[in-house]
Amino acid sequence: MSDSSPVAIKPVVAAIESHTESKPVALDLSHHLSIESVIRQKSLLKVSSSYLACDPELLSLAAGLPSPSLFPIEKITATVPIAKQESARNGLWKNDGLLPDTRRELQKKKDSSLKGQSEYDLSAALQYEQGTGAKQLLKFVKEHTEIVHNPQYRDWDCIMSGGNTHAMETVFRMLINPADYIILEEFVFPETAEGLKPLRAKMIGIEMDEEGMRSDSLRQLLEAWDETARGSKRPGVLYVVPTGQNPTGATMSVQRRKEIYDICVMYDLIIIEDDPYYFLQMSDYVPGADPTVVHVPKTNDEFVSTLLPSMLSIDTQGRVLRLDSFSKVAAPGLRCGWITGSDRFIERLLRHNEVGLQFPSGVSMAVLHSILAEAWGQDGYLDWLVNLRAEYTSRRNALLDAMDKYLPREVCDWVVPSAGMFVWLHIDHTKHPRKDNGIEAVEMELFEAGIDNKVLILPGAWFKVSPEARDVFFRATFASVSAEDMKLAVERFGEVLRKSFGFVGLDDL
Amino acid sequence: MSDSSPVAIKPVVAAIESHTESKPVALDLSHHLSIESVIRQKSLLKVSSSYLACDPELLSLAAGLPSPSLFPIEKITATVPIAKQESARNGLWKNDGLLPDTRRELQKKKDSSLKGQSEYDLSAALQYEQGTGAKQLLKFVKEHTEIVHNPQYRDWDCIMSGGNTHAMETVFRMLINPADYIILEEFVFPETAEGLKPLRAKMIGIEMDEEGMRSDSLRQLLEAWDETARGSKRPGVLYVVPTGQNPTGATMSVQRRKEIYDICVMYDLIIIEDDPYYFLQMSDYVPGADPTVVHVPKTNDEFVSTLLPSMLSIDTQGRVLRLDSFSKVAAPGLRCGWITGSDRFIERLLRHNEVGLQFPSGVSMAVLHSILAEAWGQDGYLDWLVNLRAEYTSRRNALLDAMDKYLPREVCDWVVPSAGMFVWLHIDHTKHPRKDNGIEAVEMELFEAGIDNKVLILPGAWFKVSPEARDVFFRATFASVSAEDMKLAVERFGEVLRKSFGFVGLDDL
Repeated sequence: MSDSSPVAIKPVVAAIESHTESKPVALDLSHHLSIESVIRQKSLLKVSSSYLACDPELLSLAAGLPSPSLFPIEKITATVPIAKQESARNGLWKNDGLLPDTRRELQKKKDSSLKGQSEYDLSAALQYEQGTGAKQLLKFVKEHTEIVHNPQYRDWDCIMSGGNTHAMETVFRMLINPADYIILEEFVFPETAEGLKPLRAKMIGIEMDEEGMRSDSLRQLLEAWDETARGSKRPGVLYVVPTGQNPTGATMSVQRRKEIYDICVMYDLIIIEDDPYYFLQMSDYVPGADPTVVHVPKTNDEFVSTLLPSMLSIDTQGRVLRLDSFSKVAAPGLRCGWITGSDRFIERLLRHNEVGLQFPSGVSMAVLHSILAEAWGQDGYLDWLVNLRAEYTSRRNALLDAMDKYLPREVCDWVVPSAGMFVWLHIDHTKHPRKDNGIEAVEMELFEAGIDNKVLILPGAWFKVSPEARDVFFRATFASVSAEDMKLAVERFGEVLRKSFGFVGLDDL
Repeated sequence: MSDSSPVAIKPVVAAIESHTESKPVALDLSHHLSIESVIRQKSLLKVSSSYLACDPELLSLAAGLPSPSLFPIEKITATVPIAKQESARNGLWKNDGLLPDTRRELQKKKDSSLKGQSEYDLSAALQYEQGTGAKQLLKFVKEHTEIVHNPQYRDWDCIMSGGNTHAMETVFRMLINPADYIILEEFVFPETAEGLKPLRAKMIGIEMDEEGMRSDSLRQLLEAWDETARGSKRPGVLYVVPTGQNPTGATMSVQRRKEIYDICVMYDLIIIEDDPYYFLQMSDYVPGADPTVVHVPKTNDEFVSTLLPSMLSIDTQGRVLRLDSFSKVAAPGLRCGWITGSDRFIERLLRHNEVGLQFPSGVSMAVLHSILAEAWGQDGYLDWLVNLRAEYTSRRNALLDAMDKYLPREVCDWVVPSAGMFVWLHIDHTKHPRKDNGIEAVEMELFEAGIDNKVLILPGAWFKVSPEARDVFFRATFASVSAEDMKLAVERFGEVLRKSFGFVGLDDL
């Protein structure tokens, strides 16, 4: 756009770029590719575009692209909020609205790039695109990835995806043959397991603690792996949600991340790092404090430096495939995210895109480009993220306050989540009068009694990788419920627990 | 939108609906499902939304949906052209611009559906959506499908796709196990074959004539199928592009469509009807006439009644899966289309969507909904399509005029395409001085000589399913090149042919 602010590149990027040459190249880990992925070939039609790229005088009767003049959209305008900037932050965020008054109207018009008014215009956004996704948006996410994760090897790359569920499907198909094992956390988002079953992957869930997947359990499994007994070679893929895990809300410490990574190096596993909640890392919870006031970093440099290192940033060999999504930091309806990894893997994913989704919606990419590259820039995006995480921190605090107040501590405990959108409620089934019916029966009784008492909270059984249950769990979210409704919902569930466990306190009668 | 015109439902829809009850139900063809597809399970998380749908008083701590108030888009405005309406058409279309002066500005705002101002607002478009795609857009495409195709059985349904390449991938995976055979036309769009190879499908290309796939060749293949010799059961899937086929431009007659369908009934094949060029069916080409003046139907009823019947509309058993795309009739960057078929198959595709793409971009769907349901309505969309096909007819005429003028008829012939975006140029290699080098060598010589003479036109070899070549072919497109550039490009290729074949005419020296 003619009136766009220049993208503010952080000094750190220049510093990184200057020492890229000294970074090692990734290992060749192509023995991990599935049969399906190995077979993929470069698209013949891309060859014809390479001819055109080489010779601008060439007249083409080749590509069957519809004519942009016939696209029935003349102009798209997006009205975009501008977050409170770091210069206006003083280390405290007050819940007076995430979105300050500042708005910008951004336009994408046809053919404005021809006139030098836009690097990514509407004609391009509405036309066929490369399987990588729009290079203009890709440039932004690569810079962002460099600022935040600074990969430790030279030949990393990114490719746009249709969001993390789509990214997961393509990455699973790239790495897993039927009957291969895959390692997961013991509790996962149901769609992860539901996506793996049709691929006939064998799933193993590793025990979790408050920091997520236990490294000792992982090591033990791999050390003791018996090919004959298992009927298959050692697993080659580990899938993990290291930050604000869904459903447990667990976040891995730096130490845990390094341990898991080192084990994967030792046993040659590829790590799929699915990390949509990375930027929802929160400040500490202080019980009794005003939940609407949240500490925030004073500067964006401070913000970036306090974020936990991703598995990608720990990786020196190119064995991490990191899945980033715009669903939690912008909007899920955009169906847009990106995958980062060694360029050997990214190239295979590109081959898959060319005969699958092709590329995420150009309208989504154009809107994101307007917001990120034109309205915000790298610094403005970090401003947005600082404000966003403060907003979710405040919501988390409200839910935790309600849990503190209304849930019976005699049978309940939970870890304060330091990231994400979920609190994982643990309930001690051994104190339940009908414990002999089994853990699942107690859980279902509580779930159904919840429905009867007008509160919906999801049972742990829905998230389990293996059928055995360790105890009763429930997942509660603070993502999109008002503080008042959360309070009322938790109060109702507290009543359910007291009644079901037979605690008749003064307030229950 | 508060100011939207009411959607004009054609009288025909009411008539169809009243006799839906008398239509037969589809056959159970679920024995065609792949192992992968059979295994798919209903998503557990959808269960939780069904609880919410049943009890509006339920407070939910269940779904981890981000809060719409935190989506960084306040408003999206699309400026949309309105096509010349049927009342203003007199049977002739003059190339005075497809797009008349009429424009509308359509807005999608957050929460406007709560206020009754919109049936599909920006909050919904930016949020997680069902795997079917947005019900508001689905409603429009189902009405459209009923008006245009009027399926002959009762239990058909539609699901939104991420465009036809995405639809193809999901449908192939639903129907094909590794080592299964699939039947195609002898020439296909390269991405079709490139998508099938990683699935390890065995492809058989059926000989084509000017009406596309030959029914006699198809019958012969299936009749003579020898399981032992082939090492596999008879193929269960036939993939066909019946209208304006890519690359050959061939369009099947009504008779051919019925023959192919009947053969598929007899041998129990599922038909994948990939039909993105359906609405680019054109009026006759009159050599020497003004290419910029095109006959168009006077009314939309006439338009619909002159369209060839789709395989879907012929189907009485639910064995056709029809793939429709917005790429050629609106814009490819939207990455949006839909699949129509028996609800048994649509349900399986829904299960796949839930763990794959999830749904097409909500921004794309919102923009399409603005255009189709709010600005145009069913009748306005037909107006658009009438104008669009006139525009492409005019472009086709210009290319054919140039071919008539510049290509040496001694060695070239072609069928006038009655639909689509392509002309398939046949060249008689037996007249070539270096014919003994083989067909492929002659084709590559011509291709490379074209590049040297600054014209890019794609060789037939790139589109072949089997390695054997019958003769030399080239695909030329008239989709997005100006009349002047087409003329110049064809003139250049004519020079290439004359020189390569050794015809030294007066104008070549």
